[in-house]
Amino acid sequence: MNQPEAKKQLQTNVYRHELLPTHFLERAGEAYADHIAVVDGEVQYTWREFRARARRFASALKAQGLEKGDRIAFLALNSEAMLLAHFGVPLAGGVLVSINTRLSADEIGYIIGQSGSTKVFCSPELRDQIPDGLSGVELLNTQEDLEALLSQGTEDEVSTEGFHEDDTLSINYTSGTTGRPKGVMYHHRGAYLNALAMVLDQRLTADSVYLWTLPMFHCNGWTFAWGVAAVGATSVCIPRIDPADVWRRFDEGVTHFCAAPTVLTMLANDPAAHRLERPVRLFTAGAPPSPTIIAQMAALNFELEHTYGLTETYGPCTINVPPPSLESQPEEEQSRHKARQGFLNVCSGEM
Amino acid sequence: MNQPEAKKQLQTNVYRHELLPTHFLERAGEAYADHIAVVDGEVQYTWREFRARARRFASALKAQGLEKGDRIAFLALNSEAMLLAHFGVPLAGGVLVSINTRLSADEIGYIIGQSGSTKVFCSPELRDQIPDGLSGVELLNTQEDLEALLSQGTEDEVSTEGFHEDDTLSINYTSGTTGRPKGVMYHHRGAYLNALAMVLDQRLTADSVYLWTLPMFHCNGWTFAWGVAAVGATSVCIPRIDPADVWRRFDEGVTHFCAAPTVLTMLANDPAAHRLERPVRLFTAGAPPSPTIIAQMAALNFELEHTYGLTETYGPCTINVPPPSLESQPEEEQSRHKARQGFLNVCSGEM
Repeated sequence: MNQPEAKKQLQTNVYRHELLPTHFLERAGEAYADHIAVVDGEVQYTWREFRARARRFASALKAQGLEKGDRIAFLALNSEAMLLAHFGVPLAGGVLVSINTRLSADEIGYIIGQSGSTKVFCSPELRDQIPDGLSGVELLNTQEDLEALLSQGTEDEVSTEGFHEDDTLSINYTSGTTGRPKGVMYHHRGAYLNALAMVLDQRLTADSVYLWTLPMFHCNGWTFAWGVAAVGATSVCIPRIDPADVWRRFDEGVTHFCAAPTVLTMLANDPAAHRLERPVRLFTAGAPPSPTIIAQMAALNFELEHTYGLTETYGPCTINVPPPSLESQPEEEQSRHKARQGFLNVCSGEM
Repeated sequence: MNQPEAKKQLQTNVYRHELLPTHFLERAGEAYADHIAVVDGEVQYTWREFRARARRFASALKAQGLEKGDRIAFLALNSEAMLLAHFGVPLAGGVLVSINTRLSADEIGYIIGQSGSTKVFCSPELRDQIPDGLSGVELLNTQEDLEALLSQGTEDEVSTEGFHEDDTLSINYTSGTTGRPKGVMYHHRGAYLNALAMVLDQRLTADSVYLWTLPMFHCNGWTFAWGVAAVGATSVCIPRIDPADVWRRFDEGVTHFCAAPTVLTMLANDPAAHRLERPVRLFTAGAPPSPTIIAQMAALNFELEHTYGLTETYGPCTINVPPPSLESQPEEEQSRHKARQGFLNVCSGEM
């Protein structure tokens, strides 16, 4: 954009709709009001209820003095609270820092400090991974403390006036294999677009039931945290992967999930493994899946799509799109094709 | 966006991906290279071939002196040429003016002049609707003349450097019931976003076969002209609606279409009407569909979604999203619900 074009854009706000992933939640609370948004153990909320909780979270954070751009960290297993963070924090104008639960206390302390997080919400079972003696940081748990905060908020619509799609939405840290983890800043626009690409390529709809096998701290769940809201799908949160439990959920109505190849190997080789009556779609990435596991998953009635991405690209930025003739090829040929990583996703390029 | 934010944006081009609908074609030419893009009578092209034709069209227009923002008009029935115009013209930096074929020669002459179109492509059968004596306008047909132009172009990638998503993509004229037709300027960003919303709400995928019952001159086919490219679906072009032919195409593999309620009534009451083996999804808009026709279409195995929009909103901007309990309601209750117009579409707000 050159200088005159930028000036022109200043004058066009009247018809401009900023690309904010929280918009998906606002709409889901109306359009999919009575659909189930999230299931977490015994707890479940409709999209109307889940939006109300996100609004309570955002308004309470603002009442406590949160200012635009302030960082709020979460160290939590997959849960309703962790999904809520992806809407409540940005709705308040905050920046979400989702921390990898597999890091050491030293690394976690570094991320909290380096991101400048002023509040850290932590699952009770992960409390020991937060180092003692952090200064200037308020430590809260994702249960009683979070609920107490929600009770202080209101369910009125939260204004996003003045928010720009290029504002920072979240900071995700790399795994730090070659040094200290590096913070990657996601903006609203990039997350909004990648979330739509995920929904399109995964073929999610309002009828979908998405199982959270993929940790939400990985690139905000590869942006599916927001994608599910775009179409009013249902999130099923599980804190960790128990293969027998996951197989039971496949039988009970899960339609989509994402997982690294090692998780697929664990599932395919579990005693509970069996060919599914209905196909379940999945994205796999994080390491190259072997043609063997791809063929195994196909035999169990999974529709596997191989994607590739990194923290710096909002998660999956390429996807293996099968050619139309693939289904008529020998199974070995199909698996070999799917072992490749494919093409840029439909909205990619925004990094 | 305030002044400092606009300045910031000037510096961020390095990671910015302009939202241009022609991007969908560029990607489809790779990711869906061997899928069928378009069928028109005996002619059919893959996405690789169709992209090559769009590139030929764009490069030939530029070689003839087309400059950024120049208007190119099309007066054509649904056809491969008309679909091609939606990609070739904007790829060259031109602005597409798709003219309603049902207007009088006087109105068409007005639109050509008012839009400042310098070239007008016309289906041979509509030639009489172009008034004589237009000055400064080159008149070409969509057959030999268009093909001759394509033969002068090249299949190399066409640069869109310097294109901005707020640039004008097309001008669509209102029907002019209360005066002269008014020109509505669509920008690339709005069309890109509405096309994604259409694809998501219609649930189009690479396996979809989209029948062009809706004229492409209506809001660029309610932005489906670009949406089909986003997912690599197949377009089937028909110049006019012959109900027996349309029913045959439903049996032969069409999965989606759009049509005004009057067209649905014509189809449902045709002697060829029969309950389909596979469900076909459709959007209807343009006038309120009656509960009667909604129930009739359901009985014939159509999944009808009622949408609402206008020329000024890129076509459908709201969609009737059914509540989860609707399927268990009496049929009369279902039809009554679907007669409403619903909620803003997922990307709406961009006007």
